Amino acid sequence: MARTISFGEIMMRLAAPGQQRFLQANQLEITYAGGEANVAVSLAAFGHDAAFVSVLPQNPLADAAVASLRYYGVDTATVLRVKEGRLGLYFLEAGASQRASKVIYDRAGSSIALAPASLYDWPKLLSGRQWFHTTGITPALGDQAAQATADALRTAKQLGLTTSFDLNYRAKLWSRDKARQVVGPLLKNVDLVIGNEEDAKDVLGIVAEKTNVVSGHIDHAAYEGVARRIRDQYGPQRVAITLRESESASINHWSACLLDGDQFLLSRRYTIHVVDRVGAGDSFCGGLIAALLDGQSSQEALEFAVAASCLKHTIPGDFNKVSKEEVLALCAGDGSGRVVR
Amino acid sequence: MARTISFGEIMMRLAAPGQQRFLQANQLEITYAGGEANVAVSLAAFGHDAAFVSVLPQNPLADAAVASLRYYGVDTATVLRVKEGRLGLYFLEAGASQRASKVIYDRAGSSIALAPASLYDWPKLLSGRQWFHTTGITPALGDQAAQATADALRTAKQLGLTTSFDLNYRAKLWSRDKARQVVGPLLKNVDLVIGNEEDAKDVLGIVAEKTNVVSGHIDHAAYEGVARRIRDQYGPQRVAITLRESESASINHWSACLLDGDQFLLSRRYTIHVVDRVGAGDSFCGGLIAALLDGQSSQEALEFAVAASCLKHTIPGDFNKVSKEEVLALCAGDGSGRVVR
Amino acid sequence: MARTISFGEIMMRLAAPGQQRFLQANQLEITYAGGEANVAVSLAAFGHDAAFVSVLPQNPLADAAVASLRYYGVDTATVLRVKEGRLGLYFLEAGASQRASKVIYDRAGSSIALAPASLYDWPKLLSGRQWFHTTGITPALGDQAAQATADALRTAKQLGLTTSFDLNYRAKLWSRDKARQVVGPLLKNVDLVIGNEEDAKDVLGIVAEKTNVVSGHIDHAAYEGVARRIRDQYGPQRVAITLRESESASINHWSACLLDGDQFLLSRRYTIHVVDRVGAGDSFCGGLIAALLDGQSSQEALEFAVAASCLKHTIPGDFNKVSKEEVLALCAGDGSGRVVR
Amino acid sequence: MARTISFGEIMMRLAAPGQQRFLQANQLEITYAGGEANVAVSLAAFGHDAAFVSVLPQNPLADAAVASLRYYGVDTATVLRVKEGRLGLYFLEAGASQRASKVIYDRAGSSIALAPASLYDWPKLLSGRQWFHTTGITPALGDQAAQATADALRTAKQLGLTTSFDLNYRAKLWSRDKARQVVGPLLKNVDLVIGNEEDAKDVLGIVAEKTNVVSGHIDHAAYEGVARRIRDQYGPQRVAITLRESESASINHWSACLLDGDQFLLSRRYTIHVVDRVGAGDSFCGGLIAALLDGQSSQEALEFAVAASCLKHTIPGDFNKVSKEEVLALCAGDGSGRVVR
Amino acid sequence: MARTISFGEIMMRLAAPGQQRFLQANQLEITYAGGEANVAVSLAAFGHDAAFVSVLPQNPLADAAVASLRYYGVDTATVLRVKEGRLGLYFLEAGASQRASKVIYDRAGSSIALAPASLYDWPKLLSGRQWFHTTGITPALGDQAAQATADALRTAKQLGLTTSFDLNYRAKLWSRDKARQVVGPLLKNVDLVIGNEEDAKDVLGIVAEKTNVVSGHIDHAAYEGVARRIRDQYGPQRVAITLRESESASINHWSACLLDGDQFLLSRRYTIHVVDRVGAGDSFCGGLIAALLDGQSSQEALEFAVAASCLKHTIPGDFNKVSKEEVLALCAGDGSGRVVR
Amino acid sequence: MARTISFGEIMMRLAAPGQQRFLQANQLEITYAGGEANVAVSLAAFGHDAAFVSVLPQNPLADAAVASLRYYGVDTATVLRVKEGRLGLYFLEAGASQRASKVIYDRAGSSIALAPASLYDWPKLLSGRQWFHTTGITPALGDQAAQATADALRTAKQLGLTTSFDLNYRAKLWSRDKARQVVGPLLKNVDLVIGNEEDAKDVLGIVAEKTNVVSGHIDHAAYEGVARRIRDQYGPQRVAITLRESESASINHWSACLLDGDQFLLSRRYTIHVVDRVGAGDSFCGGLIAALLDGQSSQEALEFAVAASCLKHTIPGDFNKVSKEEVLALCAGDGSGRVVR
Repeated sequence: MARTISFGEIMMRLAAPGQQRFLQANQLEITYAGGEANVAVSLAAFGHDAAFVSVLPQNPLADAAVASLRYYGVDTATVLRVKEGRLGLYFLEAGASQRASKVIYDRAGSSIALAPASLYDWPKLLSGRQWFHTTGITPALGDQAAQATADALRTAKQLGLTTSFDLNYRAKLWSRDKARQVVGPLLKNVDLVIGNEEDAKDVLGIVAEKTNVVSGHIDHAAYEGVARRIRDQYGPQRVAITLRESESASINHWSACLLDGDQFLLSRRYTIHVVDRVGAGDSFCGGLIAALLDGQSSQEALEFAVAASCLKHTIPGDFNKVSKEEVLALCAGDGSGRVVR
Repeated sequence: MARTISFGEIMMRLAAPGQQRFLQANQLEITYAGGEANVAVSLAAFGHDAAFVSVLPQNPLADAAVASLRYYGVDTATVLRVKEGRLGLYFLEAGASQRASKVIYDRAGSSIALAPASLYDWPKLLSGRQWFHTTGITPALGDQAAQATADALRTAKQLGLTTSFDLNYRAKLWSRDKARQVVGPLLKNVDLVIGNEEDAKDVLGIVAEKTNVVSGHIDHAAYEGVARRIRDQYGPQRVAITLRESESASINHWSACLLDGDQFLLSRRYTIHVVDRVGAGDSFCGGLIAALLDGQSSQEALEFAVAASCLKHTIPGDFNKVSKEEVLALCAGDGSGRVVR
Repeated sequence: MARTISFGEIMMRLAAPGQQRFLQANQLEITYAGGEANVAVSLAAFGHDAAFVSVLPQNPLADAAVASLRYYGVDTATVLRVKEGRLGLYFLEAGASQRASKVIYDRAGSSIALAPASLYDWPKLLSGRQWFHTTGITPALGDQAAQATADALRTAKQLGLTTSFDLNYRAKLWSRDKARQVVGPLLKNVDLVIGNEEDAKDVLGIVAEKTNVVSGHIDHAAYEGVARRIRDQYGPQRVAITLRESESASINHWSACLLDGDQFLLSRRYTIHVVDRVGAGDSFCGGLIAALLDGQSSQEALEFAVAASCLKHTIPGDFNKVSKEEVLALCAGDGSGRVVR
Repeated sequence: MARTISFGEIMMRLAAPGQQRFLQANQLEITYAGGEANVAVSLAAFGHDAAFVSVLPQNPLADAAVASLRYYGVDTATVLRVKEGRLGLYFLEAGASQRASKVIYDRAGSSIALAPASLYDWPKLLSGRQWFHTTGITPALGDQAAQATADALRTAKQLGLTTSFDLNYRAKLWSRDKARQVVGPLLKNVDLVIGNEEDAKDVLGIVAEKTNVVSGHIDHAAYEGVARRIRDQYGPQRVAITLRESESASINHWSACLLDGDQFLLSRRYTIHVVDRVGAGDSFCGGLIAALLDGQSSQEALEFAVAASCLKHTIPGDFNKVSKEEVLALCAGDGSGRVVR
Repeated sequence: MARTISFGEIMMRLAAPGQQRFLQANQLEITYAGGEANVAVSLAAFGHDAAFVSVLPQNPLADAAVASLRYYGVDTATVLRVKEGRLGLYFLEAGASQRASKVIYDRAGSSIALAPASLYDWPKLLSGRQWFHTTGITPALGDQAAQATADALRTAKQLGLTTSFDLNYRAKLWSRDKARQVVGPLLKNVDLVIGNEEDAKDVLGIVAEKTNVVSGHIDHAAYEGVARRIRDQYGPQRVAITLRESESASINHWSACLLDGDQFLLSRRYTIHVVDRVGAGDSFCGGLIAALLDGQSSQEALEFAVAASCLKHTIPGDFNKVSKEEVLALCAGDGSGRVVR
Repeated sequence: MARTISFGEIMMRLAAPGQQRFLQANQLEITYAGGEANVAVSLAAFGHDAAFVSVLPQNPLADAAVASLRYYGVDTATVLRVKEGRLGLYFLEAGASQRASKVIYDRAGSSIALAPASLYDWPKLLSGRQWFHTTGITPALGDQAAQATADALRTAKQLGLTTSFDLNYRAKLWSRDKARQVVGPLLKNVDLVIGNEEDAKDVLGIVAEKTNVVSGHIDHAAYEGVARRIRDQYGPQRVAITLRESESASINHWSACLLDGDQFLLSRRYTIHVVDRVGAGDSFCGGLIAALLDGQSSQEALEFAVAASCLKHTIPGDFNKVSKEEVLALCAGDGSGRVVR
């Protein structure tokens, strides 16, 4: 069991039930979510100590967000509660077949976006930890959050933590130009960069040739080039890329590749009947970090991460509620879905 | 934005939740539905002025039916409220895989079925409109409704409206012989005839050879012959036929063809994971009428209609709750169902 | 209409809604279930008189279990109510895609497990019946239950009933060794043995070569050998084996074979989008028994049983809520799932 | 355990959830209900054999109605299934405080309303029974149903059954004049007449002076006069009248009186927080009949009936789902609602 | 039918189901609400033409807010849709007994709060209308909204409309001092001022002596003084004050008084079992305006308004979904809540 | 913030929705509950460190029980997970008005009941704590659990903790005689004894004269005698007794008394509209312990405990989800239930 810590926003996720469109929904299902919180939950589920740093307002809705993290085993002693700002929200409408899922963010003015970088005592927060994780969403929340992210990564490296960073581009939060300008310098303190097939282009301007994400077909080989260019330009030891082939909102193919030093590894590819794909990339990060911390080999860790995130697609909510045993069983080849009695 | 008007029955649809059979359901989900009302909702969704003519009783259930039409943007000032009769109902049990969906109609004695043809002041109702739509269900409700349908179509043509008629055969309402006898003469006042792969046979006695709807395979070419015979026998300028290949209740292939003058056009074909297929034919009509009114070319309009109705299969309820932008995005090739953030 | 009787446990089934994991469920959906009760419900649904022998405690939860059987047409006059013991429960978490469904049994200390074999007056219970059915679960409940099962089968044969026995191995209830030791001797009083692709191995130690249930691929031919060896070793007139190929929790292929005397028959194979597969094996038994009692030929009966159980996969709950007409329609080839209006 | 039989309509009851108005409901909760079916369920709950005679169409909705009666222990072998007509429905909107509950009947054209009087073989249906019950709703369904009611009561008396008749006036089904004209002659074959504080006036034209049902205050004494006049005019041995004082839709006071021969008895009066008051009158009938059949004294039977129907007010659905033990505990004075562990 | 227009914010209301606390809720029930929108819905329900002026963003959540207003009959052609800002939200936790209901506003940054006063073309918006209504919430949204409110009221008076203003103090939006400073000058263009027992003090600094709202007891007479002082200080022709005596969250007493010129009128007082009290004050405004527009006398209008808002307490959601007939029935004395069949 | 620790069973509570009876429920609502767990949740809610000692099996249902405690802030590091036994369950049917709530326990064979007394390392578990709490349920689970309870109390006193014991008699678990025999000796290590109006009699044989709990009326004075006799016989420093007057399942009056040394204190009495009264006694314990630990005076602590438990009656689930601020506001007199915005 390693001691990890993640930093980012946690939001209330309000999802229309079943396949209902927003226009017809009379209820919304509450869960809690956020790129970094999702990773913390995965790390806890896989047996690691998982602390989470965030900033939330003092009201019962935010109380519930914190309680939900505790429910899933996350250490929330590092969540700061302040007077300013609100709990960020996001609204989710699940797609099906040719109809895409739709996310409406309502996170402006959240407490973490308003919090000054000076609020965080990083040396204290990171003391005694082994791994620090954050994503491209956190610096996108605003200049203060970007500063806090830079402080955190720098302090983490100074204290000897391993660091990971999921590129996670959010077009509603900032432009591609701004993203590149802010994220680029951060990466010098990052050991593991993770991205999906679009992030490299959006955040870093690195394009995989011959790939069309809309068509749903991916030239796996092209991503080796992307990974190598990220490594060459920004210097992380490892670069992992998740590869989603969206046949439709109902059927996805899912795999990933990992450049570890000079070794390029490609994972098994799963064909998935999608229940809920939001948070799948985060569950890949969580699986990869957990497996590396457990001392699995690069190939094993990659397969663990892909299997973990394959299972996430079958579970409602952003959080990946699977055990290490379940992931290992899938890695070992049992994807038949036979009833376990 | 064109001014359209549709005429027909609106019913309360009572659906068993999820995949439950009637025998096990403890709740029923209320929506409102009807072949012509569904078209009006589509027309409103695509930005047209959509009035709806119907007859309903004076009670809170019918109030809700009217309110629901208003919710989806339909102009309900032309809905007549009377003392006689009841609100028609239909019960729906959704199928899955090899198990077919089941519809139980409970519409006998509805206000529109009891209403005398003289109730409708067609010159006034149709004044200032550009397009009139109805279906084979309306004249099947009874002799008075058949008379009203004839009056409406004749008046519409006299006033210069374009008219469309979806054949929509309902075996529970009348026999094939009666249908042919009544519908045939109506078609002389119809500019656009729409039907599915079974209607032409059931209502007009025109058979597509070499096709077996139960097997789920369709010889697309055979439908050109059907369309041409409809045009030759009944004279509409355009004939559209939707082509459903039911692999199972869960997987359908969906396409359509359009005979426009002498030009025969075939659409793209979608493979659909079905959420709710009831009302899909109506959403095709709505899409086709809207696109034609928008001045799209015949091929574009056909593709728009098929894409619109493809999306309908992914949405609970008869009404098609999609925007023109969403349909055009699918026409443009994005059926990958990737999350829109 | 034949007079049948089944013997076994009925439990409250508590299922997490939709695809929720146990950890996230806030509600559980109640139905009632049990290998033999499921068969009784099928027999009643197909028009036979279906009595059910069980032992239940005297409390409102058990009242509901009995009432539910009555709801589905089962004769419950033969359900014994006692002071000792509790109502058995099982918790169900439905899987999806690569994630398997999970069953947690909570049946220890149930009234039927505690009941002495002497509680049952088999000559009276079986008098006037034509068919007796039970499964390998009942003797696994304990030594008294095993004795009662032996008594029942022996008395049934003495009274001239046809008997059937579904092997149904439950690893949580007993070991393979104990199962073989107890079930073997029972089979001499059994006319029809039913099993799935794993039961023959688990309960009788008879292995189908070249088959790997986890991979999801099955060598159908190998099962002829299994069936013949069961017949040769234990003497039943008929042996039926259901063959499930689990592509994933969402997609299964489903077929069966029947050795009738010396004739080996293979059924049609269905590809199923799974809604709820629990109880499917029982619905096969129910369909087979009903069809044989109706005088269908062996091939017809096999096809009826496979079609009935194919439909079961599309229905929530263990009980198979389909009519004979619906099964015959599927046997006749209509698996297109087109809406029945 | 006595053998009883009731005759009347059973409907699907579709209730808006909670305190929702029809206009805002998105779901309806299904239960089954009917004045006479409700009595049959009470009789079964109190340990009597309770057959129910009705006429229903052949469809899955009516199957569920029958199954629901079986669930609650009613013998449904005497329910006739026919091709003609539909399942009657009623829609319920629960009131609260000053807002009244609202019932919309949608029962026209039901199978029982269309059935000819000759459909029923009363000598066979009533053979071996001890008590026959029906209400003023059944003859109100139409002339054939009125004839069938007359036939049933006459045959019942000829065969020596005790008969009961709940006046149950339904203004939507017939006028007061028609009711009086039809019901009056029926009462000569009735041993026990039951009514509420309004029925006597509506059906029989007998008015309790000094009482204003809208004000919610009732002069109990005045009802002795009403009961005596019913006895004097129509000759039944017993007349029972339920007395509801509606303080609001949320708080009701509930009591009853019974004229037995010349003895006039008044019951205890309960102040009730109402959960669902529909069917309360029927539960009074069921309690009274059951208690009389059990040989309780008149005063005991009256108290049993009032206590049973008091409890009905606390249970969702028309059916009274209480046991004899629970009613006797309330009769014995425990209305404190303390938790039973 | 008079032509009315209201101006204010409409929010999505997200309510925890039943009596759940925020901390335990897994779902939230969506309705739409706002002090002025609630009044518009009441006016439409009572048969008046009710337009609503507001500003909303261009997204599906706001589409649903607009559609919901249309559902309840409000004319939404005057709702402006803009790029800036978000849809305001409020979260509701319903109380019970000694536990108070809790509202969490999340409305900062809403489109209407950000909109410049110049966005509104008041002469056009108000043209042809008879009555203009707004509340103290609208100017509290910000300086631009305050300016818009002033513009609207001034223009309304210039165009000859009757104007009403509900004081509606919201402590989360502004201080008492700011409120007094802004609202005071607005009132010179107001014909009817409405407030509750706290607003006069909070907004205008006018205190009813001898009243303690926490204790739940109100000295009705003291409010005559308050009303007269409002009239004397600010000049409106009529001042109405609602008087809530909160015995607990479950039981409230509800009445109102009206100073019309020099005549002071006190209404009937209702004791209410509360289902949902949010929006009750607005339903009083809506009832009062409707009744005055219908030409009812002052006393009749006051009683109509109190009865309408009494009924609101029994209906889930802010909107008052009652008809004029239902209100008049309660005015006429029927608060017994007897079932209407 | 004091460090507390409680010891007992935690069960899954499965409640029928709304006012449904078990016989009609199709779903059960999951929460987690247990006399001592409920106290731990209260202590955490009021700001204390609250550890909980229990024994649970290793399965996902028990995982959820633990997670739920974490959700509500309880420290679960002291929950032992073992292979033997099951998760205890209890089924709850909520009463209303004259119908009592019903609890069906299904806890036999739970892991804590099977656990040997030697499993617990009390010196380690209790080290550093200030307060130990348990109830009469724990020793009733079996001889080993009784031994563990004795060990815990003895060790606690040796280590200088304050100890509290809620008598909590459970007739389904043991007889009154056995209870007295086991609990009596335990009390010598108890500083604070808590009971309700029945426990003293059931567990200790001490009767309050002139009180009839079924009638709902309580002679408060009589309880002073009971408290004094408990003190005199068993020696605790403080004795608290909760006093419930059950007018019906819907309306309860609630108060308590406290004998502190020689001082006898009586609390304010609340009239409560009951939402969910299960767990109210535990919330009283939690409130009393928290207030005493906070240094409130005896009278203040008693009022705090009664107010806290008054609020519990308004919240679904056993756990009391209220804050110290909310309780203090009620103590200060605000029980008006006015909306907090």
